[in-house]
Amino acid sequence: MTLRVGYDIQFEIPASVAMVALLNVHPSRVADLRGPDELCIEPAAQINSFIDSFGNRCARFVAQQGPLRLSSSTLIYDSGLPDRVSPDAREIPVQELPFEVLRYLYNSRYCEVDRFSTIALELFGAVPPGWSRVQAICDWIHTRVSFGYQHARPTKTALDVYTERFGVCRDFQHLAVTMCRALNIPARYATGYLGDIGVPNSASPMDFSAWFEVYLEDRWWTFDARHNQPRIGRVLMATGRDASDVAITTSFGMANLTHFTIVAEQLPPSQTASF
Amino acid sequence: MTLRVGYDIQFEIPASVAMVALLNVHPSRVADLRGPDELCIEPAAQINSFIDSFGNRCARFVAQQGPLRLSSSTLIYDSGLPDRVSPDAREIPVQELPFEVLRYLYNSRYCEVDRFSTIALELFGAVPPGWSRVQAICDWIHTRVSFGYQHARPTKTALDVYTERFGVCRDFQHLAVTMCRALNIPARYATGYLGDIGVPNSASPMDFSAWFEVYLEDRWWTFDARHNQPRIGRVLMATGRDASDVAITTSFGMANLTHFTIVAEQLPPSQTASF
Amino acid sequence: MTLRVGYDIQFEIPASVAMVALLNVHPSRVADLRGPDELCIEPAAQINSFIDSFGNRCARFVAQQGPLRLSSSTLIYDSGLPDRVSPDAREIPVQELPFEVLRYLYNSRYCEVDRFSTIALELFGAVPPGWSRVQAICDWIHTRVSFGYQHARPTKTALDVYTERFGVCRDFQHLAVTMCRALNIPARYATGYLGDIGVPNSASPMDFSAWFEVYLEDRWWTFDARHNQPRIGRVLMATGRDASDVAITTSFGMANLTHFTIVAEQLPPSQTASF
Amino acid sequence: MTLRVGYDIQFEIPASVAMVALLNVHPSRVADLRGPDELCIEPAAQINSFIDSFGNRCARFVAQQGPLRLSSSTLIYDSGLPDRVSPDAREIPVQELPFEVLRYLYNSRYCEVDRFSTIALELFGAVPPGWSRVQAICDWIHTRVSFGYQHARPTKTALDVYTERFGVCRDFQHLAVTMCRALNIPARYATGYLGDIGVPNSASPMDFSAWFEVYLEDRWWTFDARHNQPRIGRVLMATGRDASDVAITTSFGMANLTHFTIVAEQLPPSQTASF
Repeated sequence: MTLRVGYDIQFEIPASVAMVALLNVHPSRVADLRGPDELCIEPAAQINSFIDSFGNRCARFVAQQGPLRLSSSTLIYDSGLPDRVSPDAREIPVQELPFEVLRYLYNSRYCEVDRFSTIALELFGAVPPGWSRVQAICDWIHTRVSFGYQHARPTKTALDVYTERFGVCRDFQHLAVTMCRALNIPARYATGYLGDIGVPNSASPMDFSAWFEVYLEDRWWTFDARHNQPRIGRVLMATGRDASDVAITTSFGMANLTHFTIVAEQLPPSQTASF
Repeated sequence: MTLRVGYDIQFEIPASVAMVALLNVHPSRVADLRGPDELCIEPAAQINSFIDSFGNRCARFVAQQGPLRLSSSTLIYDSGLPDRVSPDAREIPVQELPFEVLRYLYNSRYCEVDRFSTIALELFGAVPPGWSRVQAICDWIHTRVSFGYQHARPTKTALDVYTERFGVCRDFQHLAVTMCRALNIPARYATGYLGDIGVPNSASPMDFSAWFEVYLEDRWWTFDARHNQPRIGRVLMATGRDASDVAITTSFGMANLTHFTIVAEQLPPSQTASF
Repeated sequence: MTLRVGYDIQFEIPASVAMVALLNVHPSRVADLRGPDELCIEPAAQINSFIDSFGNRCARFVAQQGPLRLSSSTLIYDSGLPDRVSPDAREIPVQELPFEVLRYLYNSRYCEVDRFSTIALELFGAVPPGWSRVQAICDWIHTRVSFGYQHARPTKTALDVYTERFGVCRDFQHLAVTMCRALNIPARYATGYLGDIGVPNSASPMDFSAWFEVYLEDRWWTFDARHNQPRIGRVLMATGRDASDVAITTSFGMANLTHFTIVAEQLPPSQTASF
Repeated sequence: MTLRVGYDIQFEIPASVAMVALLNVHPSRVADLRGPDELCIEPAAQINSFIDSFGNRCARFVAQQGPLRLSSSTLIYDSGLPDRVSPDAREIPVQELPFEVLRYLYNSRYCEVDRFSTIALELFGAVPPGWSRVQAICDWIHTRVSFGYQHARPTKTALDVYTERFGVCRDFQHLAVTMCRALNIPARYATGYLGDIGVPNSASPMDFSAWFEVYLEDRWWTFDARHNQPRIGRVLMATGRDASDVAITTSFGMANLTHFTIVAEQLPPSQTASF
């Protein structure tokens, strides 16, 4: 299938400010693109594009005082298959993990692994290691944390989510990532497009979403403690240790969000054919 | 001058456990080594050596149940010059920073940049940017935070240091790193050997120490909010976002420290000659 | 002048639950009442009325499963004078404070006095003690904290307000109370009605509000770090160490708020006359 | 039996400071005293004695600059019976609790009840209410938290204890008190003398200790999550919402502890006879 993905994000900038945007499709999905994946900045600004230490494509630019608009719209091929499920995927002992995976076992800003070592063991120590343990973590969080936009705040950590039991998608994933790491399972935070493709009766607005990835057997697997069911049509944009690493935009000074619209939808078959 | 540096660190291991050690001299100092820089593990264990994403040399191994000893002793050449001071070093606007430096502007586990943006501006916004602003941060912390081993704890964050005003060397640096980042100055945490070379009447035990580095002009510079004076004989071992990235040893399970001795001293000139 | 004050607060109760409401006018204002001050509960429930350890009138009752409505409307005489200002009011040394005032120097849930002792001294230690120091605290908070309902959360503490710089009226007062106590000035949290009487061009909805009281000279004085100007027509309902002590309603189990309307307005003179 | 109880606590006072001491035996034990219970202050200072809002006897005085010594030694009769155990003691519904007990259901500085409501229910919701539920809380904490003086710090809260699993006696009780309140069981913090009377092979130094009290059936009962076994010879000094309310000494300015010796021992029978 073909997906249309894009965004229209607007700010009011009180004073010229440097920004870094992670608004491109992840390098691992570039081959699937069926159109240009370019960040349009209005008023025009020179973009310095680079790959960060996590492998994400980033764009740095200076936003001038006044209104700022970041937008894009493109097409991308998608297999149309739901997230892969592999209950036999084994947990890899720390001593056998690829070196580059080790860093996803450590603490990060919103994932206080050091405060969850005993709690995670108490909750999930009796569950068989590997896929089933990660799934048990997702089930637990999905059941016990309630979704609500009014519960979002930028400084909310996994421990806050654990005590408050409310959050938005990033909060669900932060808690899951932290639990996994506390059990020595490499886990990283992921952001991207997620439409409601294949979801019956969904009326949720199109939006970016957060999920997480876990390293089992010999690769990273997609999990999602918020939805907790295999989904179709995720378009990965970035992965990192937590939301602090992969904010859609990071501004090094004031930038007031004024508009935010995301498109992430399946193109009708006829349109795909004509592409 | 020549320095002798080494360690003898012992643990009691209740059950076989994977460990990662950052106990080698930093790659940037390898050319100065005047002896082998090898981690000796007793009982013997196979070491997987690798360079992490921050450029540090790491050693991964499995510690068996029972006593564990990690030790090393080597010689290293040192210029004998104190930390370089360069009051004219300019702050680089975010849009002109090398890409690989950007990540040292972000949040990390013990450096909650997001909670210090206003505080840092209130305290240091009136100080001219660049070297003098970083120095003002060090002066402030050095004057207002008291040193004490009894105030150490593994989960202590920059905000804790800011409110408690007590800490060990890592705490001083975490607060300084966080203040710098909140002002858009790239800052990273550093660990290594620091003897009391050139310090009159010092009687402090030899130990590892923490300091921090700041990116100004076109390079990283050494600062130390704990000692707050140029020191001779730092031997860098690792840099990272904060102490969580560069723990001397990280064990993925229980490991009880039983002994800890560090050597970091100047070799008498005669011995250096005979080397 | 005469004020009409009242409320209509509704909940959906999933299962029978005990509640405590602080919805009466404070005993210190009972003589001003010009009508009955009775909590009406629908469906009817037996009320146990008592005075808590802070001197507030409380109502305990059991809410049955289903919808619950708490309402009241009464009239109260008010002097029509703004909050008294007394710049010469002296700070009383701790050793001379009335014993019953001492408890308002201590820590409480949302006022972590122990984490502010140095910060408060750094910010306000140079301001002359007494009224001017309390006013300096209010000025500082009023200027540097922004109001916004979207920043409310039940677990927000003074330290959170200090770092986030956003909050609702309770947050402003918690920070002010904490700063005062850290400087050995007794301070307590207050809640009640506050209409916009005498406020030109105000369009804010009528609501309960929070302010705080400080003990200077020989009595408690009203301060308000949120509005930071003398106001007319406060009708005190309760005082305590912080919001946890004087929640409008505390339910010992689930109770979902469904409706919340407050009335606090000046009666037109003609109506007053006919009363 | 007769106990000798007393203390010798010394400070160095940098500048004249007001202090409040809770160093008397609790009013509920005054009838058991077999000697004067007087706080001796050197150099001499005038004592203002009062009963605080929790019913504790307090002493307020001004300590002059220089060394300060607080001391006392007295005799007190004790039944010699261990803490009473009453497995049938029922939990009282909130609506039937005595009014003065209600405040021990609320949040306090070190007992963040609002952050434990779900956790407490998950851990202990399946245990029958009443005595057995409180005992289950004590068992859980006693088993899972380790004692160690090196883990003490003045700002440690129940949530910190829950994540760190280390603490001193006050930390054990704070966590237990918080869990009880989160389950609507009134609980208060208690401090006093606790020798090792009747404890075989004990070699612990005599000290003050913390325990907690729970309101069940028609009275307060003693529990102790640290020792978790009925003990002989507790001599209550104070109860409050948490340690912040009942600190042995609270100084409203600097006071540096230099010496701390506690006596709490059984008098040999012969001495008792001769009394």
